[in-house]
Amino acid sequence: MAIEIERKFLVEELPVTELQHATLEEIQQGYLIREPDREVRIRRKGELFFLTEKKGAGLSRDEQEIVINEQIFDALWPMTGGMQLEKARSTFMLDGHQLELDVYHGALKPLTILETEFPTEEQALAWSPPWFAGSEVTGDIRYKNAQLAKAGKPDNG
Amino acid sequence: MAIEIERKFLVEELPVTELQHATLEEIQQGYLIREPDREVRIRRKGELFFLTEKKGAGLSRDEQEIVINEQIFDALWPMTGGMQLEKARSTFMLDGHQLELDVYHGALKPLTILETEFPTEEQALAWSPPWFAGSEVTGDIRYKNAQLAKAGKPDNG
Repeated sequence: MAIEIERKFLVEELPVTELQHATLEEIQQGYLIREPDREVRIRRKGELFFLTEKKGAGLSRDEQEIVINEQIFDALWPMTGGMQLEKARSTFMLDGHQLELDVYHGALKPLTILETEFPTEEQALAWSPPWFAGSEVTGDIRYKNAQLAKAGKPDNG
Repeated sequence: MAIEIERKFLVEELPVTELQHATLEEIQQGYLIREPDREVRIRRKGELFFLTEKKGAGLSRDEQEIVINEQIFDALWPMTGGMQLEKARSTFMLDGHQLELDVYHGALKPLTILETEFPTEEQALAWSPPWFAGSEVTGDIRYKNAQLAKAGKPDNG
């Protein structure tokens, strides 16, 4: 099981220049299990399919990811009814650090979130967010994808 | 991702005395993905349900296991058609070491396999099998569960 250490920020204005060399992927995901301290989700990312478990909350979370296929994804997708979301993810480098910018579709529009991962909590805490990073929502349960999928956009999103 | 280090042996004669204090669980499992170097299986073990990925072959294998539920298990079970098996697992201690004895049902009957896991390869190799352990089949592809589920009992099983 890998530990995922990440920080998340709301984005109000798209960093057009920084995104010029980003790679863009459409992500579709739904939640099969949503418990207070554990989620199991399925995700389509381009032509790849994943089943992922995340445990815990906040800066560091345990994550296990298993590569599945379209047939398994399709069998499980109906079971995620009411807890689904779609977003376009731009992945790009800034000052040698990889950033992910998620632009949500559907009812969550125009929510845009900047996410970035770190090898250690020390590096996560020492990092200075770029100009387009708005309010930090790391550990804010309202901005967890499972919560967004179920409850929709927070009032101040 | 955890590394699974295990040794496996055929068993011809049940160790009746050693099994007196064993715990017994019925296991039902089927394979969703079976690639040369990777398997994804679902398993019911008593009242618990798992989705597991195993990579590699031989003494040490990478393993990731995610707890699912009966609803997910039931949605995926039809997709394991032709690659399913059932067995009764007895778990017991011998000289301070935990052993698992799997008695296969159905077409695989009377196949019986002793399995045991170790924290390191050194301990795995240093271990002396008990009197009821027959031929060692660690790393023998014919005795991998995915292969047993698909191809049935080896001729000399």
